[in-house]
Amino acid sequence: LFKFEVTILGCSSATPIFNRHPTSQWVHINHTHILLDCGEGTQMQIMRYGLKASKLSYIFISHLHGDHYLGLMGLLSSMNLNGRTDPLNLFAPLELEDILQQHFRVSESELKYPLHFFPVNHEPENLTDNVLVETQDFRVSKIPLKHSIACNGFLIEEKPGPQKISKETMDTYSIPYDALAGIKKGQSFIQADGTEISADRLLEPKRIPRSYAFCSDTCYLPELKGLLNHVNILYHETTFGHSFLSRAEQTYHTTAFQAAQLAKDAEVGKLLMGHFSARYKDLNPLLEEAKEIFPESYLALEGQTFSI
Amino acid sequence: LFKFEVTILGCSSATPIFNRHPTSQWVHINHTHILLDCGEGTQMQIMRYGLKASKLSYIFISHLHGDHYLGLMGLLSSMNLNGRTDPLNLFAPLELEDILQQHFRVSESELKYPLHFFPVNHEPENLTDNVLVETQDFRVSKIPLKHSIACNGFLIEEKPGPQKISKETMDTYSIPYDALAGIKKGQSFIQADGTEISADRLLEPKRIPRSYAFCSDTCYLPELKGLLNHVNILYHETTFGHSFLSRAEQTYHTTAFQAAQLAKDAEVGKLLMGHFSARYKDLNPLLEEAKEIFPESYLALEGQTFSI
Repeated sequence: LFKFEVTILGCSSATPIFNRHPTSQWVHINHTHILLDCGEGTQMQIMRYGLKASKLSYIFISHLHGDHYLGLMGLLSSMNLNGRTDPLNLFAPLELEDILQQHFRVSESELKYPLHFFPVNHEPENLTDNVLVETQDFRVSKIPLKHSIACNGFLIEEKPGPQKISKETMDTYSIPYDALAGIKKGQSFIQADGTEISADRLLEPKRIPRSYAFCSDTCYLPELKGLLNHVNILYHETTFGHSFLSRAEQTYHTTAFQAAQLAKDAEVGKLLMGHFSARYKDLNPLLEEAKEIFPESYLALEGQTFSI
Repeated sequence: LFKFEVTILGCSSATPIFNRHPTSQWVHINHTHILLDCGEGTQMQIMRYGLKASKLSYIFISHLHGDHYLGLMGLLSSMNLNGRTDPLNLFAPLELEDILQQHFRVSESELKYPLHFFPVNHEPENLTDNVLVETQDFRVSKIPLKHSIACNGFLIEEKPGPQKISKETMDTYSIPYDALAGIKKGQSFIQADGTEISADRLLEPKRIPRSYAFCSDTCYLPELKGLLNHVNILYHETTFGHSFLSRAEQTYHTTAFQAAQLAKDAEVGKLLMGHFSARYKDLNPLLEEAKEIFPESYLALEGQTFSI
């Protein structure tokens, strides 16, 4: 089982307060490091928590409200000044490309590493087939959210990898190495005495691939239940408590109660709560509200790392 | 004597390190609060040091390198979300207006307070008559600097205010209140016995107006000596020590030695040093280098307030 974890770099909503920075999360999956959103101050938060920006190979931006992207120009520039040469893949709404170009033009700076920009459009009705990138280890898909401007969440799924046969099984049935490839393809194994043993009995049970869903800014969308079904960890914004339901609806945000309901309906492993309104100095009432519906609810506080 | 002080919000050069944010300074002069530059994270630094962004009425941006302006969009947005209605005056290079408009367009946000934008052009040869704003308390002028892109520093000068006559003087010479206005205009006072007393003898000595100069990013410009003559506090970037002179020249920055030489030549009261390169974990060697030339040199560290 390789490493798959998320570190919270910011847990504030649009107006930060002291000790709560705007949204950003760092996902480490096997040898790959991914940034989800990049609010103002992300490069400082990366340093604060001992991470290395030079290791990032993917950045995903959910939408173009300032608290989700304003740290990007500084981060890209600092990596440049620090001598980065490795390519970086940026998935974001199309308009961000112009914003970046304008910034680099007026500051007369030029990136010395390849920045590959992949525009991500928003297709509210499309709940399947939304894969943005696929490697041998994982797959990232967009999740269509509903906010005051176009916004996508991101689903990161581990790939199952090839099925294995244990050393013990090989000894028990005296399986020669050159039979392995066939068995892994599903072929039965014929023993010396002619007994046929099906591949299912020889292969280790399929590992259930782990998954992490990041739902940044959105109103409550019960229809995501299917897409989020059984994810190990669901991060979902909980900007408000349910007593501010009408404010949440007005501003296309979600209450702690609603996020917990979605977590319960989708039967996820854990719910991480974040994007807290500045009005909550004490976050425990939000946590309690969620736990009543879905006990495996956690505050996604800055500096915390959750293993997936 | 009214309050005139500067609080340092960031002292890092382009690549921040932990505990050193990019450039921003807060000047409090009588009832007015002024921000000089606004690097990424400034809104968080304002909160950290107990200041109130809602009190700001002027922001001056020296140039459009990211470490001097990338905190502006977040700061303007947060003031908006926090209900600001007071007008705000922004002095900055012309291109910043487009950058702001693009940001507010893509985020579909609209400021509910008046933002008055005043483009500041860069006139390298113009060393006088550079006043940008004048109130009854102070005057702000631009200082033409020389950097890799167009860059202005800012000089904030207290206005001398009307000259006063002490209660004691009034009693001594039996001056009636209705004679005050004339004396303040320079008219002599004629006593009952016909003796004429000149206004100079009656008025208190003129107070020397205090001044603060902010030289953000620039190569060493000895010709600023005249313009900076006798300022109470000169903030001048000292990105490098003098052993990195050629690197400083290449990148249009100043060494600690050079800044101290300018402070000495201009006979300023104090030199504040800042915009430190990330290569210096320990800043004492820079301080020592400056103090050898100009003993009244200080590190402008974050959170420190200097009274002018």
